Amino acid sequence: MDYKFIDGGVTAPKGFTAQGICASIKASNTTKRDLALIYCDTLCNSAAIFTKNLVKSDAIKVTQKHLEDGKAQAVIVNSGNANTCNADGYEKAEQMCKIAAKALSVSEENVIVASTGVIGQVLPIEPVIKGVEMMKGNLTKEGGTNAAEAIMTTDTVKKEMAAEISIDGKKISIGVIAKGSGMIHINMGTMLSFVTTDAAVSSQMLREALFEAAEDSYNMVSVDGDTSTNDTLAILASGKAGNKEITEKNQDYRIFVSALKKLFKEIAKRLASDGEGATKLLICNVRGAKTKTDAKGVAKSIICSSLVKAAIFGADANCGRILCAIGYSGMDVDVNKTDVFYKSEKGKIEVCKNGLCIEFSEEKAKEILLEKEIEILVNLNDGSGQAEAYGCDLTYDYVKINGDYRT
Amino acid sequence: MDYKFIDGGVTAPKGFTAQGICASIKASNTTKRDLALIYCDTLCNSAAIFTKNLVKSDAIKVTQKHLEDGKAQAVIVNSGNANTCNADGYEKAEQMCKIAAKALSVSEENVIVASTGVIGQVLPIEPVIKGVEMMKGNLTKEGGTNAAEAIMTTDTVKKEMAAEISIDGKKISIGVIAKGSGMIHINMGTMLSFVTTDAAVSSQMLREALFEAAEDSYNMVSVDGDTSTNDTLAILASGKAGNKEITEKNQDYRIFVSALKKLFKEIAKRLASDGEGATKLLICNVRGAKTKTDAKGVAKSIICSSLVKAAIFGADANCGRILCAIGYSGMDVDVNKTDVFYKSEKGKIEVCKNGLCIEFSEEKAKEILLEKEIEILVNLNDGSGQAEAYGCDLTYDYVKINGDYRT
Repeated sequence: MDYKFIDGGVTAPKGFTAQGICASIKASNTTKRDLALIYCDTLCNSAAIFTKNLVKSDAIKVTQKHLEDGKAQAVIVNSGNANTCNADGYEKAEQMCKIAAKALSVSEENVIVASTGVIGQVLPIEPVIKGVEMMKGNLTKEGGTNAAEAIMTTDTVKKEMAAEISIDGKKISIGVIAKGSGMIHINMGTMLSFVTTDAAVSSQMLREALFEAAEDSYNMVSVDGDTSTNDTLAILASGKAGNKEITEKNQDYRIFVSALKKLFKEIAKRLASDGEGATKLLICNVRGAKTKTDAKGVAKSIICSSLVKAAIFGADANCGRILCAIGYSGMDVDVNKTDVFYKSEKGKIEVCKNGLCIEFSEEKAKEILLEKEIEILVNLNDGSGQAEAYGCDLTYDYVKINGDYRT
Repeated sequence: MDYKFIDGGVTAPKGFTAQGICASIKASNTTKRDLALIYCDTLCNSAAIFTKNLVKSDAIKVTQKHLEDGKAQAVIVNSGNANTCNADGYEKAEQMCKIAAKALSVSEENVIVASTGVIGQVLPIEPVIKGVEMMKGNLTKEGGTNAAEAIMTTDTVKKEMAAEISIDGKKISIGVIAKGSGMIHINMGTMLSFVTTDAAVSSQMLREALFEAAEDSYNMVSVDGDTSTNDTLAILASGKAGNKEITEKNQDYRIFVSALKKLFKEIAKRLASDGEGATKLLICNVRGAKTKTDAKGVAKSIICSSLVKAAIFGADANCGRILCAIGYSGMDVDVNKTDVFYKSEKGKIEVCKNGLCIEFSEEKAKEILLEKEIEILVNLNDGSGQAEAYGCDLTYDYVKINGDYRT
């Protein structure tokens, strides 16, 4: 596949502009961007997938309704308030769409809305009105980066990426922005992530592509085991690249999904490495499982273990905690065949063979684990199933951030 | 039921003596007790239940074999080394039984063995030989407390309790010791807990009683979501109380199980409040669930949430994180009927009604949450299922303890 990363994010594909500004959604915030608009100059095919949490933000409910026809032209997103578990949440989410629709002269049914931040506090609508007013004449290609910033909460770096591929002889761009950080244990949807493309793809194929690409990327990230109430992954396809519209699972569809998956995997790593309080990215690669499901279950169990996460923070090459997490994963595993390695830029070291902890150089292990990106390689030696999951270490700062989040 | 707590632990029931000493299982440990013996002057009916983790300590495998006939007379336990995932683990566990058997003049098949501590380091047998030698002439009633100390790892307080009940007109004592602290997400077995009684109960009824009593007590505790490889809950019944042996699920059995459950619930709270790094005990009481299973699932989901645990550490009356954890629990819940309260010695405050966060006095909430024992009361208003789960807050010290556990 012809694939390369390019500069930019959601405004990289043809037809899209965006902006993000500080609207002071939280009155105390007077500097951080917290309101974003993404706009396409043509009506797009669109799809979205959402959190599996039974408690859902009203923004999700409104977006679900607006996407029933598989069409969208704009996205409005705020940070600083999740608009979840509020008595007037649905009404506020609808108001946000109306405000954006009016300013951009599009139908409110074609606006996607999302919110992220504190749950259970009433969303003030005045800042949204003022903020949209400020942005409406100022949606640009350059504004994409501001939009990426505006959806951040406790994120410390913004997540935007874009890639270029070829489909049907046409150059196609795909752009992504995302926010993550805490309450991250992604399940079918993701935190917030917005994807744009100029490819021509039907709404139904967009939806299938999202599910398929998220499966091995976003859905394999966990920061703290808590599945958010606001997870939203939405895609808009302008069709401006001029390729023959993808309406079935043909070769073009496969190329498109592969490109999405590559992008999402990179973003997934960034979400994990910028998890709340995180100092290290943790990648757990499992192979040799009986099935892919077993591989995924084992990989997730390891990256979700508080004890493994704390050990990685302490650069402690603990073998027992990895085996322990494999043992309680609930997957079909023969622990007596299991080998475990730690790997980073400084090298690779085996700590477990055939389910038994083995002797290794503590010095070498420490050197490997002091790096910023740590791989845990697990070979179950029992089949061909494989999977990769993304997490981070558990640190003092995670506790600090979450012991005092609302105040 | 006639039930009262009495002083002491495993040596409270007739026939039992014990001791615990510092054997320096970890060479660097020269002061903390780390080897314990519990002995009965008569052969006991016995049963045990174990971790569901696929990775199991060899001590468990040896104990399972020794309990095939439902009989035991002694228990040997060490802390400081889990004897798990070691090539010579089974052999070492057998050696421990042999050493204890010889010193106590009992059959090695009647010795229960357990280990707790670091996984994957070879267990030195010399300290065990010397330690048992030191204890063998010195098993006493008073020694029970030393045994409770000797099984501690990162625990900061020892857990021992005893109770007295009446069965068949006879006074019956039950004694318990336990250790907890980290790698605690109990699943059918428990961390380490040893129970003695002078009641006459058949091995099969002991086994059933353990399962039944653990179900609502030990199995409802979580410190960090990690199910240990060494969980062992064992009971020995000397029969010296003189009651008619309990061999079926009659009225006497019910009294016995109720007493066990009461004891285990108290110990469960102590395990949770002494969880690694914990500053607060968290009790989540769920009622109004469609079924008991739903109530248990919701209660566990809440006490396992890192975000809820960190919020409690910060005395932050966060309503959204509770609702979020209910929403992803996987249980059959109508979130729109859910009410949530926080409660402590300082009072009770409602933070959520019908699935919506409501306004409350932040000042009052802070006062309530600054206490050491916090209850989260959830009413699902949808049935009669209820359950209680036990956990603790997530603190800097949890990270500290586990970032540097082996060194």
